[in-house]
Amino acid sequence: MALPMMGPQGLRMETSRRDLVKQTGALMIGAGFAAVAQAVAQPSAATAQKPPALPWPFQPVDPVKAAQAAYDHYYAGGCMFATFEGVTGQLRETIGYPYTSFPTYMLMYGEAGVADTATLCGALNGAAAAIYLMAGGIRPERKEIAFAMIRELFTWYEQTELPDFEPEVSMFDIVKSVAHSPLCHASITNWCKAAKVKTHSPERAERCAWLCGSVARQTIKLLNENAKGSFKPAAVLSTETQTCRSCHNIELDNTRGSMECGSCHFTPPATHSKL
Amino acid sequence: MALPMMGPQGLRMETSRRDLVKQTGALMIGAGFAAVAQAVAQPSAATAQKPPALPWPFQPVDPVKAAQAAYDHYYAGGCMFATFEGVTGQLRETIGYPYTSFPTYMLMYGEAGVADTATLCGALNGAAAAIYLMAGGIRPERKEIAFAMIRELFTWYEQTELPDFEPEVSMFDIVKSVAHSPLCHASITNWCKAAKVKTHSPERAERCAWLCGSVARQTIKLLNENAKGSFKPAAVLSTETQTCRSCHNIELDNTRGSMECGSCHFTPPATHSKL
Repeated sequence: MALPMMGPQGLRMETSRRDLVKQTGALMIGAGFAAVAQAVAQPSAATAQKPPALPWPFQPVDPVKAAQAAYDHYYAGGCMFATFEGVTGQLRETIGYPYTSFPTYMLMYGEAGVADTATLCGALNGAAAAIYLMAGGIRPERKEIAFAMIRELFTWYEQTELPDFEPEVSMFDIVKSVAHSPLCHASITNWCKAAKVKTHSPERAERCAWLCGSVARQTIKLLNENAKGSFKPAAVLSTETQTCRSCHNIELDNTRGSMECGSCHFTPPATHSKL
Repeated sequence: MALPMMGPQGLRMETSRRDLVKQTGALMIGAGFAAVAQAVAQPSAATAQKPPALPWPFQPVDPVKAAQAAYDHYYAGGCMFATFEGVTGQLRETIGYPYTSFPTYMLMYGEAGVADTATLCGALNGAAAAIYLMAGGIRPERKEIAFAMIRELFTWYEQTELPDFEPEVSMFDIVKSVAHSPLCHASITNWCKAAKVKTHSPERAERCAWLCGSVARQTIKLLNENAKGSFKPAAVLSTETQTCRSCHNIELDNTRGSMECGSCHFTPPATHSKL
């Protein structure tokens, strides 16, 4: 009786303290011994703690709340942090550990395509990390499903008019654009052109905050579907990209990836205007 | 007396169990009550655990061991996982917690530019995450130093003949190439062209394993310098990229980033060979 009371899952909390004291009265001496013995045998919580294997426990999450949470966290830590927090924050509240143990602020590194280098969109980077944490694992079949979900998200991002999430309150009206790329550089450039604003404007920052909401909501949609067993990849690469890949990624096998080819290879002008 | 014995850091371990039993004999009833009361009031070790604030503790690491560890882990979980493991693995051994609590397998998501989409090189993605964990934080001055280290690493990667690390034992001789990009897509394509092999060849996989070693070693070099207070950004963007940025990133402010512009904007042929 004594050991379960001190076990790692804690005491049954529905029992009142008065009831417990009554119940344990007869077992008090034994409980005292057992508690001391366990305290000696067990290393501290800090050194003993190891993360559970992937995937971490998941239960269906409200996608709109996730989107709003992602938006709310954007100005505190950037796009990767905000999107990961939007996707995982509700689970930290409802499930608790192991989500309580994750150093979410590490993901500030992904801001503006990683440390402002404008490579991979931070919202996608954070969402991909969260998907792997909650649907992936070291087994090949887990990796396969998580990778399929991530690729589904990336293709949706490339082809969809975004941001398609609007927060409860916002400083601006935000126009939509199609990124045609999962890269921060192209995503921001194309949006700024559509919105006719500069990249360091408050409107652009607000657009990226909305975009974190869009990506978090779409990620939760995929994770909820996966939890129900109903996730099926549906996104289709552009016809042009499929054509390029049929030679380069398969027959010639001289390149890798599934980004839209035309975003870099065909759209830039062959000559620059006079400097 | 009773509460410290059951505290989250565990019992003073230098005291023998027999001594403890003697010492606690007179306090047994009290201890029994206190233990029960604490079990009710305090969540389990698992739910109580929260990660410490960034940056996590760091002490100088052997860069060659880090590189070898990154290489050794490549085939187990891909490039992002391997590089992060190479950079942080020694600290898990020497410092223990909080490194023992981190779910490193989550970083399998970054394989081949995230789920094989060939966006950001996974070695760079994993290294950037590790740098932020060990040198970054929510304070602006911490973010600034971590971002400077990450950008230093990215520019080094773009401009250096890699891989420049050779593991203790390898199946192949691996040639070097310059990526001219932090993206998996360009990095692999350029290397395969130089090595005259296909992207799904075992030689290409081995090249990426060596590359993880190179990136882990360079990352540790930066982190060791930072720990000594001697880190200074030294990498310089290419002259061409500086010229582009002087208008587009500053004056016009119509794009973002620091990737080599020519990698996408000028090198592709204007016309495709006949299909």
